[in-house]
Amino acid sequence: MKASWIAVDWGTTNFRAFLMSDEGECLDKIQQAKGLLSVKQEQFPQVFDELISRWSKTYGHLPVIMAGMVGSQQGWREVPYVHAPASANDLANHIHSVDLLSGNKAKIVSGVCCINDFGNPEVMRGEEIQLIGLSEIIKGDFHAILFGTHSKNAYWHNGKIESYSTVMTGELYSILVNHSILGKSLPEQKFNKDTFIKGVEIGAKYPLNHVLFSARTFKLYDEIHNSNIHAYISGLLIGHEFTISNRLNKLYLVGSQNLASNYALALEHFNIEFDVIDGDECFLKGMTKIYSKGEINEY
Amino acid sequence: MKASWIAVDWGTTNFRAFLMSDEGECLDKIQQAKGLLSVKQEQFPQVFDELISRWSKTYGHLPVIMAGMVGSQQGWREVPYVHAPASANDLANHIHSVDLLSGNKAKIVSGVCCINDFGNPEVMRGEEIQLIGLSEIIKGDFHAILFGTHSKNAYWHNGKIESYSTVMTGELYSILVNHSILGKSLPEQKFNKDTFIKGVEIGAKYPLNHVLFSARTFKLYDEIHNSNIHAYISGLLIGHEFTISNRLNKLYLVGSQNLASNYALALEHFNIEFDVIDGDECFLKGMTKIYSKGEINEY
Repeated sequence: MKASWIAVDWGTTNFRAFLMSDEGECLDKIQQAKGLLSVKQEQFPQVFDELISRWSKTYGHLPVIMAGMVGSQQGWREVPYVHAPASANDLANHIHSVDLLSGNKAKIVSGVCCINDFGNPEVMRGEEIQLIGLSEIIKGDFHAILFGTHSKNAYWHNGKIESYSTVMTGELYSILVNHSILGKSLPEQKFNKDTFIKGVEIGAKYPLNHVLFSARTFKLYDEIHNSNIHAYISGLLIGHEFTISNRLNKLYLVGSQNLASNYALALEHFNIEFDVIDGDECFLKGMTKIYSKGEINEY
Repeated sequence: MKASWIAVDWGTTNFRAFLMSDEGECLDKIQQAKGLLSVKQEQFPQVFDELISRWSKTYGHLPVIMAGMVGSQQGWREVPYVHAPASANDLANHIHSVDLLSGNKAKIVSGVCCINDFGNPEVMRGEEIQLIGLSEIIKGDFHAILFGTHSKNAYWHNGKIESYSTVMTGELYSILVNHSILGKSLPEQKFNKDTFIKGVEIGAKYPLNHVLFSARTFKLYDEIHNSNIHAYISGLLIGHEFTISNRLNKLYLVGSQNLASNYALALEHFNIEFDVIDGDECFLKGMTKIYSKGEINEY
């Protein structure tokens, strides 16, 4: 298959580029820890040119389409958010372009904003592409959790991203484990399913900060082994994330397969049907969908 | 008034001793950043002797009664918890003693444990003294919040500490502000009442980790000024702490007067009657009550 365009996911800590065929197959990949926070504003064309030089030498210029934080204030060019409900067409119609060193242009897809069920504003950059990709796999309406540092609980309805909300599951886990008393003086941690599920049950049932301290007291009471504290905290936070989600019949978990296992255990415990879909697969299907709109050559 | 005994609050980061009269008046105070985490197990007698040497020179040996983490595993001697419901008598009957350099003994009051309303185990060391002190001031049953790093929501009933639960309000505030994305790249912070109350309302109403991220998005949307983010996070966490507490008619806030102001604003907003009682006053009244039981000379 012929290499015909490049899809880029440029985030704050990582740069990832995918060499794509017209049929949406990924032929090659370039990944570097060259997040946009390490790039000065005026250096973006130069840095990008160096990052994909391997492909430029072989294929010359190829159309480039980018998504993620590269379109934020801290990125190459700020691209205004499209307000949900938002379809693939809506995103394709709000693409902005930037100048490459070669004199050609590259395209940046906008993020999506919304007001969530609690009346709070929400923003995403990058995940909207995964949701469009997921809609190509599933067909029809769906609920999805794009889990991670800032987990997105999203609803796709009538061909559009209808609404979503953010839960800081990954980040809160990280700071509790690394910076709070709950993570202090622990031996090497092992995952324990029963302990994790105990956390899930308590986290789903009670106000979060009223039960967090039990990660310490259960240990003092020898009811949780001190090598399973991380598993318990993960359970509390994932249970808490499902506080409002367990009204759903089926959930799609989007992310890397190995990180999905804790969410999967929690959903099995609640008897909620689910599928795990690879995050990169969703991203590339979403980018291919946007690319296929033809807008890429028109700006 | 005559100096006749010494009350000590020895915690993980601070040592505080109060020179007391028989009538419960505080005549002098010694405070040093000599928390027990900085003291090796075998050094406690020596370190204590040095810390109160100013009084020993003047008054010779005085009875010493201690409370707080000094009775924990990391302290001078581990004193088992008394299980709630627990009265002042119960505590006085479970005092343990340690040997001083002078050959005399000092007394350590036990902490109090319980199972909270969520079925989770709870432990406190030091706050039980404040609750006993508060019961000397209030007379009758009461609900109190001993606010701080690990806020204790406690219920005093029929002359006993009936039950309590821990909310990590202070610690979660600290790690969110210092280690999460919510606290990143902020200018100097100012307190803003409206922003704080906005946080209180949202925190009291919705699952905590489902609304935390709004501290970032309200800023992006210019709905909260970036100099008021700490006030908003404080509001979210204090509102969340009241998720289950606003069934109460009246609350006693125990702690230092200047830290009580945020809690006071939140309670005013909810039209909950409250009084603020100084934490040290409660501690000394509680220690005097235990001391008056006379057990101190019997071990």
